[in-house]
Amino acid sequence: MPFDEIDKRRTERMSLTIGVDVGGTKIAAGAVTPDGEVVERLRRQTPDDVAGVDSTIVDVVRDLTQRHEVKAVGIGAAGWISADRATVIFAPNLDWRDTALRDLVERQIGIPVIVENDANAAAWGEFRFGAGADADDLLLVTVGTGVGGGVVVDGQLMRGAFGVAGEIGHFRVVPGGHECGCGRFGCFEQYASGTALVRAARERASVDAAAGPLLEVAGGEPDKITGPMITRLANSGDPMCIDLLGDLGTWLGEGIASLAAILDPGVVALGGGVSEAGELLMGRAERAFEAALPGSEYRPHLQMRLATLGNEAGLIGAADLARDVRR
Amino acid sequence: MPFDEIDKRRTERMSLTIGVDVGGTKIAAGAVTPDGEVVERLRRQTPDDVAGVDSTIVDVVRDLTQRHEVKAVGIGAAGWISADRATVIFAPNLDWRDTALRDLVERQIGIPVIVENDANAAAWGEFRFGAGADADDLLLVTVGTGVGGGVVVDGQLMRGAFGVAGEIGHFRVVPGGHECGCGRFGCFEQYASGTALVRAARERASVDAAAGPLLEVAGGEPDKITGPMITRLANSGDPMCIDLLGDLGTWLGEGIASLAAILDPGVVALGGGVSEAGELLMGRAERAFEAALPGSEYRPHLQMRLATLGNEAGLIGAADLARDVRR
Repeated sequence: MPFDEIDKRRTERMSLTIGVDVGGTKIAAGAVTPDGEVVERLRRQTPDDVAGVDSTIVDVVRDLTQRHEVKAVGIGAAGWISADRATVIFAPNLDWRDTALRDLVERQIGIPVIVENDANAAAWGEFRFGAGADADDLLLVTVGTGVGGGVVVDGQLMRGAFGVAGEIGHFRVVPGGHECGCGRFGCFEQYASGTALVRAARERASVDAAAGPLLEVAGGEPDKITGPMITRLANSGDPMCIDLLGDLGTWLGEGIASLAAILDPGVVALGGGVSEAGELLMGRAERAFEAALPGSEYRPHLQMRLATLGNEAGLIGAADLARDVRR
Repeated sequence: MPFDEIDKRRTERMSLTIGVDVGGTKIAAGAVTPDGEVVERLRRQTPDDVAGVDSTIVDVVRDLTQRHEVKAVGIGAAGWISADRATVIFAPNLDWRDTALRDLVERQIGIPVIVENDANAAAWGEFRFGAGADADDLLLVTVGTGVGGGVVVDGQLMRGAFGVAGEIGHFRVVPGGHECGCGRFGCFEQYASGTALVRAARERASVDAAAGPLLEVAGGEPDKITGPMITRLANSGDPMCIDLLGDLGTWLGEGIASLAAILDPGVVALGGGVSEAGELLMGRAERAFEAALPGSEYRPHLQMRLATLGNEAGLIGAADLARDVRR
């Protein structure tokens, strides 16, 4: 190997950062290159207690730093993060409450750390290396159990005055609508999430003869119906499941039309588990978007795309955000 | 006068810019200092024909440049403006369609020109010199015939990928709701504007005995009821008019809660004609906001304020935006 090639590889090793994605069920970590490539990945169960979560984060980072020279760590966490990216203000599924996570981890590993909301981190990942790599403005909409998202405006992650921007699952789409986990009613995620899809499927399964194939897959019990069952059947041509995904796509497209009126993104990326339904969902979402976009005839239209980084978007985005840390 | 004082004044004159606010009924222009002070103002009727509008803009600018040394001109126009701030893509109340307004005016006056959406310009004005002068992130909500607005994120005006961000009057708040001028249904401005206020008042005037005082002011004809009548009566204690403004405030606060979930501004400024109802409107808007904000208990709250620049916000903001022009 020529010397300059060795130098190059050394430089690349030097400029790795670690991304950690802390979810309610798993903690994923990876060492990531400046090009967004994950050179090693680790995955652990999320412990039930918050002390266990903190020490697991430290453990996976230490593990990776044994084999990689790393300059910074980005932690994407499902919760509200303070504007200075230091503190978890509140996490709905973990017991962090005004937890100074950045300093807590930094003290133990001796490398600069930033904390970011997981959906924001994912939006940044898709913006830098995924569906929005060619755009200046991106809206990521992740459709899973809930609806999450993140917004990139003119090349900058929109964090908001308090660090809690981009909670697109919780703008209200139906006054007095379905109750939401956030304590309010009629939030977007109550109509455009996997949870909404399953709720609609279970309701129809009890009353609609067309639900036969879906009920059969669920062993005859409406309560056993899951999102992946619906997606699978829809992809194999089941009319009711296609219809259910279509309804979800319609809500999704109409909600995105509202978001486009406010944010005017160039690209909307659809991610999350439900996006695995692919074109079946996106085709309907696009049509509903076109029909619902205010002043549609008189303005340029955004591009709707599937997200490309899958469930590594948050990890990759967090690692990349950590790259700019200056403290 | 000492020489350094003369020099100072000369420098101040040198650094004036002109702001022009082009509305459906009037064209207002002013020469503006770097501190946002309007040193001279002109006002003309908006001509019916688009050629007349263009030449009136040129006229007022020429008029001001005869008495002031001006380095750039910012035009705020009620329409969709391209991302490069050169072209009016579409204006609902004026006949501009893909009109290269910037070049058209620049050619005739020989000074750099930028064009901006009027509500964006107003948001920038309030951010720089008004209700948001102490903030990094501002949402301006103007409540007049419709609902307009603009968004400043981390010190930057959010223009969007195509220049049409901040159309907050047109996110959907009621599926299948009132028809909107934009061609869609259920837009925010159909529930939180002066038009909505008057519609509700006229409806109640026909059926509600409490409408007596309002009907009297309107000469007994529900169709003659106007927004200022309602505001005036409410301010003098009329229960039904207080109630009508309260309903408007509730829609407004609930809509702002949705916008806060998405944008997380530090300050929301309420402007436009209806905001002259002052605390009567804002008190209810604030209470509705608190009640509707998702996860309200677990996050820092924005401040809601009345806008302070009145109907000069657009002119002042456009003048200030022109200050940074580099071409």
